[in-house]
Amino acid sequence: MDIRGELLIGGEAFVGSGPGFQGIEAASGHPIEPTFPAATAQDLDRACGLAAEAFTAFRDTAPEARARFLESIAQNILDIGDALIVRCMAESGLPRPRLEGERGRTVGQLRMFAGVLRDGGFLQARIDPALPERKPLPRPDLRLRMIGVGPVAVFGASNFPLAFSVAGGDTAAALAAGCPVVAKAHPAHPGTSELVGRAVQKAVADCGLPAGTFALLFDGGRDIGQGLVADPRIMAVGFTGSRAGGIALMKIAAARPHPIPVYAEMSSINPVVLLPGALAARGEAIGREFVASVALGAGQFCTNPGLLLAIEGPALDGFVASAKAAMAETAAATMLTPGIAKAYEAGVSVLEDHAAVETLARGRAGEGLQGQAGLFSTHADAFLTHPELGDEVFGAAGLLVRCRDAAQLQAVLESLEGQLTAALHMVEADHPTVRTLLPVLETKVGRILVNGFGTGVEVADAMVHGGPFPATSDGRTTSVGSLAIDRFLRPVSYQGLPDALLPDALKDANPLKLWRRVDGAVKAP
Amino acid sequence: MDIRGELLIGGEAFVGSGPGFQGIEAASGHPIEPTFPAATAQDLDRACGLAAEAFTAFRDTAPEARARFLESIAQNILDIGDALIVRCMAESGLPRPRLEGERGRTVGQLRMFAGVLRDGGFLQARIDPALPERKPLPRPDLRLRMIGVGPVAVFGASNFPLAFSVAGGDTAAALAAGCPVVAKAHPAHPGTSELVGRAVQKAVADCGLPAGTFALLFDGGRDIGQGLVADPRIMAVGFTGSRAGGIALMKIAAARPHPIPVYAEMSSINPVVLLPGALAARGEAIGREFVASVALGAGQFCTNPGLLLAIEGPALDGFVASAKAAMAETAAATMLTPGIAKAYEAGVSVLEDHAAVETLARGRAGEGLQGQAGLFSTHADAFLTHPELGDEVFGAAGLLVRCRDAAQLQAVLESLEGQLTAALHMVEADHPTVRTLLPVLETKVGRILVNGFGTGVEVADAMVHGGPFPATSDGRTTSVGSLAIDRFLRPVSYQGLPDALLPDALKDANPLKLWRRVDGAVKAP
Repeated sequence: MDIRGELLIGGEAFVGSGPGFQGIEAASGHPIEPTFPAATAQDLDRACGLAAEAFTAFRDTAPEARARFLESIAQNILDIGDALIVRCMAESGLPRPRLEGERGRTVGQLRMFAGVLRDGGFLQARIDPALPERKPLPRPDLRLRMIGVGPVAVFGASNFPLAFSVAGGDTAAALAAGCPVVAKAHPAHPGTSELVGRAVQKAVADCGLPAGTFALLFDGGRDIGQGLVADPRIMAVGFTGSRAGGIALMKIAAARPHPIPVYAEMSSINPVVLLPGALAARGEAIGREFVASVALGAGQFCTNPGLLLAIEGPALDGFVASAKAAMAETAAATMLTPGIAKAYEAGVSVLEDHAAVETLARGRAGEGLQGQAGLFSTHADAFLTHPELGDEVFGAAGLLVRCRDAAQLQAVLESLEGQLTAALHMVEADHPTVRTLLPVLETKVGRILVNGFGTGVEVADAMVHGGPFPATSDGRTTSVGSLAIDRFLRPVSYQGLPDALLPDALKDANPLKLWRRVDGAVKAP
Repeated sequence: MDIRGELLIGGEAFVGSGPGFQGIEAASGHPIEPTFPAATAQDLDRACGLAAEAFTAFRDTAPEARARFLESIAQNILDIGDALIVRCMAESGLPRPRLEGERGRTVGQLRMFAGVLRDGGFLQARIDPALPERKPLPRPDLRLRMIGVGPVAVFGASNFPLAFSVAGGDTAAALAAGCPVVAKAHPAHPGTSELVGRAVQKAVADCGLPAGTFALLFDGGRDIGQGLVADPRIMAVGFTGSRAGGIALMKIAAARPHPIPVYAEMSSINPVVLLPGALAARGEAIGREFVASVALGAGQFCTNPGLLLAIEGPALDGFVASAKAAMAETAAATMLTPGIAKAYEAGVSVLEDHAAVETLARGRAGEGLQGQAGLFSTHADAFLTHPELGDEVFGAAGLLVRCRDAAQLQAVLESLEGQLTAALHMVEADHPTVRTLLPVLETKVGRILVNGFGTGVEVADAMVHGGPFPATSDGRTTSVGSLAIDRFLRPVSYQGLPDALLPDALKDANPLKLWRRVDGAVKAP
C-alpha cells in the first residue's frame, strides 16, 4: 500500500483541499513526504453523512459478519508488512520491537472483539415472558437487547500510533458494536494512519459493507476534529490524549443541541505505593523494576508510574539507592513529537526548580529531541500543599513522596484526582495496611495492581483501562478489554413484538445461541 | 408519622431556616399545612458531606444487607398506612386507586432491587486467571467487579409522587448500587415526600447504616437543587421532569470541574403508528383504547401517547369516529399542579389556534384546575414543516398526523426527536411495513410496543424506560427495571490481588454464589 496523503471517505481515496501538513521524523525533527492536505468542512460533512447512511445496514449485520470484518481488518494490517513498521518508527521514534508488539496488540484487539461478537454476551439479551394470568394486570412479553448508538468519532492517540489509533481499541469496539467510525488521524503519524486506514477501507469493501462504515480524515489543525464532535450525526466520541484536548471535546459535546458522550482517556500519574514490608523484603529490586517501568517507551504511557508513595524509614533507603543507580544508567530516548519532548522538559523543570523537591537522579543526557529520565523526591507535607506537584509529567519522570506514617500516606492518596491505575508493592505483612488503603484506591482508580506496574495493559475481559475524572471523562467505562464495547451500545426493549419480527438475539429459538436472562434467571443457549 | 415540614439530614429531622413554602391542594389550589422552610447552603453542605462519609461503609455492605435495607424501606412505606395516600391525593390530585397502585409499584421496585442484589448479576464479576506460561509475556490474574459511583442526587418527579420520587426508582437503584442518596423533594408534594423520607430514614437507622446514607432536602426554589448538582461530592444525578429542567441540570453537571453524569428523563410524545391492517380490522376499538390511554391520569405520564400516525384512507375513518366519540365523553381531570394545568392549556391552545390543525374533539369541560382532554388532527405535510407541532403537550392531548402513504409515515418518524416509546398497532398483514419501520424506531426510542400504549411501564429485567435525547439525557440507560442500577456503577479491576484481599464477588470460593465470566466463559456458581 502506498502513502499518498489521501483522505479515505466513502470507499474512495483522494487528496484533500485543506491546508497541508507533513509527518515529522521524531528522531530528527525533519518533515517526511508526502504532504497531507487537510479535509474540508465539505469532506467532513460527506464522511458523517455516509456514516449515518451506513449505520442502518451496518448495525443490522449479523454478529458473525462483523466478526469476520474485524478479522479482515486485522489480516489487512498484517499484510501491509514491514512498510507499516518502518513508517511508524520514523513518525513516532518508537523502536521496532515495541511497534511490532503494538501491531500484535492491535491485531489481537480486533480479533478479541470478533470473539466478543461470536460470544454475544454484549447483546445483554433479556426476556421476560408474558404472564397473561398475573393479577391485577397481566405482564406483556418484554425483551431487551443492546444496539449500536450510531456513528462514532475516533481520535488517534500520539503515543500508540497503532493500538489506540485508526484501527485501535476505540475503532474496534465501535465497529463491533455496529457503529460506523469516522476517524481523525493524529497529525504526528499521518503516514501510519493512512496505511492502517487503507487496511480498514479494504476490509469494508471486501466484506461488502456500506462504504460509509469507515472514513479517515486528516487535519494538522483543530477544525476538523472539533467539527467532527459537533456534527449532529456523530453519536459518541473516543479519544486518547491530553487533558486539555479531552476537556475541549467534552465541552463541544455537552454544548450540542443533542449532547453526546465523550470517552476521553486523559491524564494519570498512577500512584505506586511501596508498603514497608515489601521495601524491607526487596526494596532494591523494586527500585530497579520501577526505573525500568518509568523509562519504558520514554515514559510515554498513560499508565506510566509517575508517583511513588512510601513511609520514611530505613527500609526506603535501599529502594532509593537502587532506583538512583538504575536511573543514572538509564539512556535518554527519542520522544514521540517535538511538542511532547518540549512539554516533558517543561514538566521536569517544574520539579527540578521546586523548592520542596530534591532531584535524586537523572538519566543519561540525550541528544536533540530525546527525553532525559529523572527521579525526584518530596515530602508529603509539601505534596499536600503544592497541587502542581500532582500534575502529570508525560515522560520518564517519577516523583517519590515520603510520608510520615501510614495515615499520611492515606491522606496523600485521598488528595489525588482520579487515576487509571494504582500499584501496591506489598508482602503478606502489609495486608492490614492494604486493607485500609483499598477502599480509597477503589474510588480513585480503575485498576489496582499488586507487585507490578501499570504499564502493560492486558486486553482481557476483566481489564479496566479507565478511572474517575480526570483520568478519563467517564469513569463508568473502560477503553481496553471486552467491556469497552459497552461504551457504544444502548438498550432497546420490545414489548409484544411477534417472534417473526424480533431480532435474532431475542427470538424464541435463540438462533445466535446466546446466554440470556430469561424470567430473571441466567439461561444457557 | 407526622408531617412537620422538617429536613432529614444525618439521622436527624429539623426545620430548615430557608424561605418556606407549602404544599398546594391540587383540586382547589389552596395551600396545605405545614410550611416547609427550605434547606440552606449549610444544610446542603452537611447532607453532601455526610453522604460522602457514609459512602465508604455503605458501599462495603454485603448485597444481602442492602437487600434487607431496601425491603425495610418498602415495609416502612406500607406502615405509614392511609395517611400517605390521603396526603398524596391532596397534593397531587391523583385518585386513590392510582396512588394505591403507585405505592404498590414503589414497594415493588424496592423489592425488585433487593432481588437484583441477591442475584448479584449487577456486579458483572469477571475473572481472567493468570497464565504464567503464556508467551511472549505471562498474563497476570485479573478480576473485575462493579462498585457504586458515589453519592447520588435524586430529584422527585411531579407526576409520580411515590414511584419516581423520594423512594422511587432512582433512589432504589442508587441505594442498591451502594450509593448514598441526597433527595430533593418536588415542591408539589412536600408532605408526601416527608412521610416517605422518614420511612427511608427509619430504615437507615434500623439497619444500622451510616446516617449519611440518606438525606431529604426541601426548597420551593431552585438554589438547593442547583447547588446539589454542583456539589463536588455528588457523583451522579437522577431526575424526572421537564426538558428545560433536565437540560439546566445537565449544563450545571457538565460545567463542574469534575463533570458527572445526569440521568434526566425529560420529554416524549410517544408516537403511535396505526398500521392499515390494524385499522381495517379493529380501528374503532383502537380509537376507544387510545382515548382511554391518552386521558389516563389526566395524561400526565411520560409515556402518554401524544402523537398518532396513520395513512389516510377509509380504514382511518372508523378509528377517528370512535376516538372522537370517546373523547367527547372523557371527563376533565384535576392536574398535578396549577402550573402544569396552565402549561397544558397553553399547549392545547397552540394546537387549537394552529392554522394547520383541526380540533377533532374535546373532552368534557372541567372546573378550576382540571384539564380538558383533546384530540387534534393535522397532515404530515404540515407536521414536517411546523416543528412546534412535535412539542410535548403534557396532559391528555393527542395529535393525529395523517400521512399520504407509508413512505411519508416513515419520513415523519425519521423527523422525530428521541422518544421513550413507540407503539405499533398492527396485524400480520402489516408485517412488511413494520419491518421497514423497525430500524427507524430502534434509533428513535427506548421501547417498541405492539398493540398497546406506552403507559403502564412494567418493572422488569427487559424494560427500557429511556431513549435518545431529548427523551432522556442519556439514551444508554433506563430509569425503570433492573438494568437501571447500571447508571450508578463503575468497573474496578484487580490485578494480582491476593485472594484474602479480594472483594467477596471475586474470591476463588465465590461466597456470593455469583454467575461469573471466567476465562471468557459464563460459569454457574
